[in-house]
Amino acid sequence: MLTTGGCPKTALSIKDALEALEGRWKLLILFALSTGNKRFNQLAKEVTGITDKTLSKELKSLEANKLIQRTVHATFPPTVDYSITAHGMSLENVMEALHYWGLAHRQEIIGK
Amino acid sequence: MLTTGGCPKTALSIKDALEALEGRWKLLILFALSTGNKRFNQLAKEVTGITDKTLSKELKSLEANKLIQRTVHATFPPTVDYSITAHGMSLENVMEALHYWGLAHRQEIIGK
Repeated sequence: MLTTGGCPKTALSIKDALEALEGRWKLLILFALSTGNKRFNQLAKEVTGITDKTLSKELKSLEANKLIQRTVHATFPPTVDYSITAHGMSLENVMEALHYWGLAHRQEIIGK
Repeated sequence: MLTTGGCPKTALSIKDALEALEGRWKLLILFALSTGNKRFNQLAKEVTGITDKTLSKELKSLEANKLIQRTVHATFPPTVDYSITAHGMSLENVMEALHYWGLAHRQEIIGK
């Protein structure tokens, strides 16, 4: 696609995607949720380096973009957990491409 | 990859990639450069919505990550242009995955 040059419509869809995934945390949160539903504290532990405040903000944004679902369970006291939606799972190809590129990038920049 | 669950090493390479590409602008700048070398003002025009200050900052970061090359031509007065490197071009798969996901996301969120 790159080699055939940048058409404006392609740039638009890339911009949409980048806006939904903005920042360094959202994909990492989705990645953590890909192994199963998690509670807030579990996520805070698994997504290394994130603060509670940022995690809370990112979860809201991911929910607004229909990438995750927040569920309140009717236990006593009520418990809340987060799960990845089918739309969130559809980011698999993006994550895979980023994963392989990240490996190559590490080689290029850090490995030399 | 997502379906097989998040191994910590995979998360690391995704984190590397996201850090190198952080923000909404870098991929769009690379995308604009994929059609050929450009001067600063051409980029400022093509990457809709970016300010000169941000463009300047992002170009420096892209150069530090070896994704673009800044060339000073020995004309009088000297001219500067930017080109995408082979390493930058290797983001093609990431861009393609983002492009297709961006289209699906637009359908999911905006199209409904």
